[in-house]
Amino acid sequence: MASNGNDPKPPVECVLVTGGAGYVGSHTVVKLLEGGYDVVVVDNMSNCTQNEKTSQPESLLRAQALTGRRLTFYGVDINDEAALDAVFKKASFTTHSVDCVLHFAALKSVSESCQIPMTYYRNNVAGTLALVKVMTDNNVKRAVYSSSSTVYGTPQCLPLDEGHPTGQGCTNPYGKSKFMVEEMFKDLCSADKCWRVISLRYFNPVGAHESGRLGEDPLDTPNNLMPYVAQVAVGRRPKLRVYGDDYPTSDGTGVRDYIHIDDLAEGHLRALERMFSAGLDGFRPYNLGTGKGHSVLEVVQAFSEACGKKIPYEIAPRREGDIAASYCDASLAKRDLGWAAKKDLKEMCKFL
Amino acid sequence: MASNGNDPKPPVECVLVTGGAGYVGSHTVVKLLEGGYDVVVVDNMSNCTQNEKTSQPESLLRAQALTGRRLTFYGVDINDEAALDAVFKKASFTTHSVDCVLHFAALKSVSESCQIPMTYYRNNVAGTLALVKVMTDNNVKRAVYSSSSTVYGTPQCLPLDEGHPTGQGCTNPYGKSKFMVEEMFKDLCSADKCWRVISLRYFNPVGAHESGRLGEDPLDTPNNLMPYVAQVAVGRRPKLRVYGDDYPTSDGTGVRDYIHIDDLAEGHLRALERMFSAGLDGFRPYNLGTGKGHSVLEVVQAFSEACGKKIPYEIAPRREGDIAASYCDASLAKRDLGWAAKKDLKEMCKFL
Repeated sequence: MASNGNDPKPPVECVLVTGGAGYVGSHTVVKLLEGGYDVVVVDNMSNCTQNEKTSQPESLLRAQALTGRRLTFYGVDINDEAALDAVFKKASFTTHSVDCVLHFAALKSVSESCQIPMTYYRNNVAGTLALVKVMTDNNVKRAVYSSSSTVYGTPQCLPLDEGHPTGQGCTNPYGKSKFMVEEMFKDLCSADKCWRVISLRYFNPVGAHESGRLGEDPLDTPNNLMPYVAQVAVGRRPKLRVYGDDYPTSDGTGVRDYIHIDDLAEGHLRALERMFSAGLDGFRPYNLGTGKGHSVLEVVQAFSEACGKKIPYEIAPRREGDIAASYCDASLAKRDLGWAAKKDLKEMCKFL
Repeated sequence: MASNGNDPKPPVECVLVTGGAGYVGSHTVVKLLEGGYDVVVVDNMSNCTQNEKTSQPESLLRAQALTGRRLTFYGVDINDEAALDAVFKKASFTTHSVDCVLHFAALKSVSESCQIPMTYYRNNVAGTLALVKVMTDNNVKRAVYSSSSTVYGTPQCLPLDEGHPTGQGCTNPYGKSKFMVEEMFKDLCSADKCWRVISLRYFNPVGAHESGRLGEDPLDTPNNLMPYVAQVAVGRRPKLRVYGDDYPTSDGTGVRDYIHIDDLAEGHLRALERMFSAGLDGFRPYNLGTGKGHSVLEVVQAFSEACGKKIPYEIAPRREGDIAASYCDASLAKRDLGWAAKKDLKEMCKFL
């Protein structure tokens, strides 16, 4: 972080961001740049279009334009240990060494993970093992990990707090990969007290940067509700399919804890600030959600109001592996990290 | 398998064995050679002495001497995808292509896995992912996997059958790594119907080849009971430490399902024979155990009788993570694979 001459050296100056070109990554990069951090992004550009692969991904160009600051970008896959090691070494020669890693790099489609599970395990699990190896070799032992509420599997009780069992009833390779990596970090932190890992368990990230220049716009049929709704609103798809209206919820449709991408990105900044504080040692999981559940039809309603258009939808059968309701107890992040979501459903629908 | 001129081509001729120089691997290699299979062994020799690393590991030289047959050995680490790929390619050029992989390669000390968890995850989990990648690239989609009863975690009921939940209460990285790999294979078999994986969940392998030329003799303090008892018997250690005598078992000491290494190796042959049969598709886990539990003191007694010596022991506190009792229902392996353990505790103590 930028310091004036009188401050003691702040603990974190240089942050390496894996998967920094992605949806959550790029929003967090904006906040890091605004916060004065030196940012090194590593991304294999697997989510980029062919066009973007020739230079820097569009999301990072926009992040720099939005903030007026520069970042360092490497088109490197975290599974390529030699290339990744070179990035850590270069960072320590050219600017200063990496203080902490924000680890976003992962494949994230639940349905795709069922079709090509080994690709998911290689990217998400083996990729993290490669990253940890290189971090250890370079004596960087601080990480903020992009985890997910899917680690809780089928909720045994609601709201979900961090003490809820994990890994039980995870029905898809994506969710399992997130669970496995958490277990590995847990074991690592038990074995080596120098390691400190904050695992942020995202609920359902939605929304876009208020500039309208950063967001989520998948090319294929969206797996997540919000981009789907947005594509229906602009006429790219005729109607929304609502999977299941016979769940034991208020209106029968699935209930989720949606969180604005801006709040989510902010959560990473808070985690980073606390990373070097006393008392916050070992492996620490935190829920990042609003703590409020909204049904699919509530979301559709809110979105209709925001854009002034009716969103046509049809009821389809339940999707296999979907759960009825999921929302969190977000009090631990508030207590330990001083973080709480600020934006409500209405604001989430604003800049989609 | 060797065929006479009248037989139709048998389905499995060439078997690639990862970790074939190890304890279970080398005993299985003997049976494979006896059974007429072409055997290609891949082993990184991490469990070999410096001396053995210059040529073939001693265990494989002995396996060949015992059977009068040759095998092909490569000193390759399964994490080295390029080298592993070359092994598959060479096999298909020089003899014939690999029909099935027996995957033993793994680190196996529970206590060590708590100290260096990432080394375990890299070897056992990422190593398997690398192997699966290379197998897929070479269109080899049959594997017999060395799993472990540790995947069951803390038993919710006894005997343990294959329907018992897995992954819950796994307290150490070794056991978790076995569980994670099973999950990955499960997902792989669901996604790609050409894959077939038989996962053999070993209970507590003990004993040695009847020639006395193959066995388990760890250099450090043994983690497992039997080699420990054997070292006390020959005077290499003064006395046996019995961890806990206040478990809810017949005499208060821990109860395990010990299985003779010869029976265990035989189980792999049966799995291999069934690998290409109709009906045995997808991911199939099987317990390999006798179905009988023996307490530590029963083992000490049996061993004393076998060697005609008293085994001095002392009671020590319980070890963290140890469970009271574990033994299996072995009926599924009998029904599906036609396999059952033949040797009892007395015979297990014979050739140690």
